[in-house]
Amino acid sequence: MTAVALVTTGNARARFAPPLAAALEGIGARLLPEGDDAAAEWVVMEDLPDGFDPARYPRARAVLALWAGIEAMLPAIPPDLPLVRLIDPEGLSAGMTEWVLGHVLRHHLGLDRYLGAAPHWDRRVPPLARERRVGVLGLGALGAASASALARVGFDVAGWSRSPKAIPGVASRCGPDGLRAVIARSGILVLLVPHTPETEGLMDAERLGWMPEGAALLNPGRGALVDEAALLAALGAGRPAAATLDTFRTEPLPPDHPFWSHPAVTITPHVASATRPDSAARAVAANIARARRGAPMEGLVDRARGY
Amino acid sequence: MTAVALVTTGNARARFAPPLAAALEGIGARLLPEGDDAAAEWVVMEDLPDGFDPARYPRARAVLALWAGIEAMLPAIPPDLPLVRLIDPEGLSAGMTEWVLGHVLRHHLGLDRYLGAAPHWDRRVPPLARERRVGVLGLGALGAASASALARVGFDVAGWSRSPKAIPGVASRCGPDGLRAVIARSGILVLLVPHTPETEGLMDAERLGWMPEGAALLNPGRGALVDEAALLAALGAGRPAAATLDTFRTEPLPPDHPFWSHPAVTITPHVASATRPDSAARAVAANIARARRGAPMEGLVDRARGY
Repeated sequence: MTAVALVTTGNARARFAPPLAAALEGIGARLLPEGDDAAAEWVVMEDLPDGFDPARYPRARAVLALWAGIEAMLPAIPPDLPLVRLIDPEGLSAGMTEWVLGHVLRHHLGLDRYLGAAPHWDRRVPPLARERRVGVLGLGALGAASASALARVGFDVAGWSRSPKAIPGVASRCGPDGLRAVIARSGILVLLVPHTPETEGLMDAERLGWMPEGAALLNPGRGALVDEAALLAALGAGRPAAATLDTFRTEPLPPDHPFWSHPAVTITPHVASATRPDSAARAVAANIARARRGAPMEGLVDRARGY
Repeated sequence: MTAVALVTTGNARARFAPPLAAALEGIGARLLPEGDDAAAEWVVMEDLPDGFDPARYPRARAVLALWAGIEAMLPAIPPDLPLVRLIDPEGLSAGMTEWVLGHVLRHHLGLDRYLGAAPHWDRRVPPLARERRVGVLGLGALGAASASALARVGFDVAGWSRSPKAIPGVASRCGPDGLRAVIARSGILVLLVPHTPETEGLMDAERLGWMPEGAALLNPGRGALVDEAALLAALGAGRPAAATLDTFRTEPLPPDHPFWSHPAVTITPHVASATRPDSAARAVAANIARARRGAPMEGLVDRARGY
């Protein structure tokens, strides 16, 4: 029977082991007990533990992460051991889509102005979604799901990705010209590219300057996609006019960070999307089953690309 | 050539006359000039002017309102003159759907807690939409569009209406038992029934008491659907725990109304949905064309029902 190890940090094992054991049973595999898992063919990794030694798993055929952002794991996994990031439409993608929809609609409808407002009857009506241009940088599993949901609500959506994508209702752009075009058209811009050497500091002073006046920047992707000093300067100049940030270079975001007190910045504490143990366990088990029947696993990391 | 009168209040004529004239031209009808419109076969009414006299339009075959809520017009229109409320998927319904989605997601994701928050890194993640029960009272044009959009986002949606409705993803309930069931199951409840003698004060102390603890009430429908004193008392008891209100018994809501300063109440100033002149003009023209070819008009008011 195919054996699987679950590698966790902190006290995460208690949350992940039961659903993973159940999902593995469904594909004729079994979860090895903690500490007695060296015979594992598949290593499921909740997070990278300090001092992780891949040599402990000589029979490992792949490491399957329980998270989409695997850049921190990459250096610790030998290049000849396949690393697989989590693709989980029912969990990660669903949560991300809801966060993106919620905050795009919040900026679109100008909801903040009504919260805790003094008595003020201003009946100006916001534009309709079809009159609002939204851009999504990154059309992987999370970006495609979010862009697609935004298009279904009626927004005028364009997306940018490494390769062209066919997503109904979403204009697909690529390359440097595409990046500039999507940033320059978007009244609301959502960052969902992976963090790689290429996307490090993607939103720097120059690219922030391409945003239309009054635009809003949403970053539920990776903190390192944004040059924080450049963003603070750009907010001062009104491009963007507002930012809602879920991810940061340092987490938890330090209490004295200027983002906390900035009137144009909204902070959500890395809650845009989270791994849900049940659906993640099913997704990981399905991927192991795929590999066992010789099919490609979903989310296999390309080392050259870095995601 | 079929002649149409446009009846307006304030300075609304300037906004509505040009798109209406253009839309009427498209169906071979013409808009009569203001003051010289007694020959009209169709009367398009932006709002009921003081002292409106239907006898001024002896050839009128119907009055077509540019709004969905026609209860204030009803007494002024003779019973033998058909009154038609506006059904406009591209305008009224689109705007309502966006407001409902935005505020349902706001309550669902608990967004208010992040706005202007002191530094606090609390990574509790909200449930997913499929784990959130949303109820929509009223499945007419606005309610059906909103319920359907909520279901597409993934919410667990039930709706209540006079007659059963087949809306994909929306559990349809009717009658007094259905009303109680929908109210009692809904963590977020949206009021979109028309205002009639039957729905006057629909959400009274008893029915507010059926809401689950911690629930949120959204009223983008009609102010008169809610017993305001009962709602204030219910909020004090936590059922509902929050209310977002767009419509009120008196509008503008008086500055000294207790809703303004209530920490659990969010007020939007009757902006959930508004008539957009372009799409409304097209909808009205299409309805006139329908009537001219002998088809039933959409939105024809049933006097006995009151909407």
